[in-house]
Amino acid sequence: MTQHIPSLQKLVHEISRLPGIGPKTALRLAFFVLRSKNELAQNLSTALLAAKAQIHECAQCFAYTEGSDLCHYCQSPHRSDETICVIESPSDITNIESSGAFRGRYHVLHGSIAPLEGVTPNDLRIQPLMDRIDQAQAEGSPLKEIILALDADLEGDTTALYLSKLIRQRQLKVSRIAHGVPIGGDIDYIDERTIGRALQNRVDI
Amino acid sequence: MTQHIPSLQKLVHEISRLPGIGPKTALRLAFFVLRSKNELAQNLSTALLAAKAQIHECAQCFAYTEGSDLCHYCQSPHRSDETICVIESPSDITNIESSGAFRGRYHVLHGSIAPLEGVTPNDLRIQPLMDRIDQAQAEGSPLKEIILALDADLEGDTTALYLSKLIRQRQLKVSRIAHGVPIGGDIDYIDERTIGRALQNRVDI
Repeated sequence: MTQHIPSLQKLVHEISRLPGIGPKTALRLAFFVLRSKNELAQNLSTALLAAKAQIHECAQCFAYTEGSDLCHYCQSPHRSDETICVIESPSDITNIESSGAFRGRYHVLHGSIAPLEGVTPNDLRIQPLMDRIDQAQAEGSPLKEIILALDADLEGDTTALYLSKLIRQRQLKVSRIAHGVPIGGDIDYIDERTIGRALQNRVDI
Repeated sequence: MTQHIPSLQKLVHEISRLPGIGPKTALRLAFFVLRSKNELAQNLSTALLAAKAQIHECAQCFAYTEGSDLCHYCQSPHRSDETICVIESPSDITNIESSGAFRGRYHVLHGSIAPLEGVTPNDLRIQPLMDRIDQAQAEGSPLKEIILALDADLEGDTTALYLSKLIRQRQLKVSRIAHGVPIGGDIDYIDERTIGRALQNRVDI
């Protein structure tokens, strides 16, 4: 029926551009918007435009921020300057922060090296990371270690290898977060590559 | 991290008002919007406002329409005036049309009688349906049957009972779409009430 209602067809089309939302869900959401009060569509519309207009990348770590040049994590006097955690996307911060296991600074690459998709090191925020390290060392900052919290896939591995070479040239410790059996994971159901890595990286108890 | 970025927090809040979208999915969608081009947010925002501004209810059947007072289905000269299919919401038309089994007119109630939620017959488009039937009969229209395609739940049953009384007073045939085993359904897995209804409503072969 949407073909008879161009504005509905357009709305379904735009909603289905969002990841994980197929045409059926998009249609369901569009009908929900239509039968809801005008405020719902207006508030969502305003929030979309405001987010795009006001949120920008932090000048130092490239995480998202709003209002000031530097993000909350770069500004905070309560965080350690000894470690920088390198991540692929700003959304990774949410999970790392809720773990409570990291209190240093961040650096967002905005992607990972993926030659097959044409993503080269120059497309990522790698040079700014090196500049940041060089400047920290020149200024006598207590920076000691770069932790790579990259995805556990081919692109993450490639990026980790590439970064580790550059960072080691700067006489800095570089580490990568552990791969292994997830907490609550059942050995029976874990894939062989994860088991292999978990065995390799076993820790003394 | 969203608490440090008010526009992101607001966007996540507005997205999570949509049905079936929890806070985690909303956050994922918000990050997708942030890393996409400005056009994505702009187009979605415009489509939301345009849909609410331009789509309205058909003056006759209360389905959604755009541009003219009457919807595509009320206007079409290729559809039969002998039957009206009564449905709960405009989105039901999509499924009925794709079945290809109905070529009459529609009437959308915009809900079903639900005393527990305070929805009474007066909150629905029931009086306009009766006015429509009365007018059709006064004008000598070929209207012969009202088909109730309501949900197979308590509210649908209540509404069907209420409507059937009103329609029978008008010497019109009233029917309800069949309940039974869905096509492809396995008898082993069908609930007992559906089986009961399917046995009751068995058809000669």
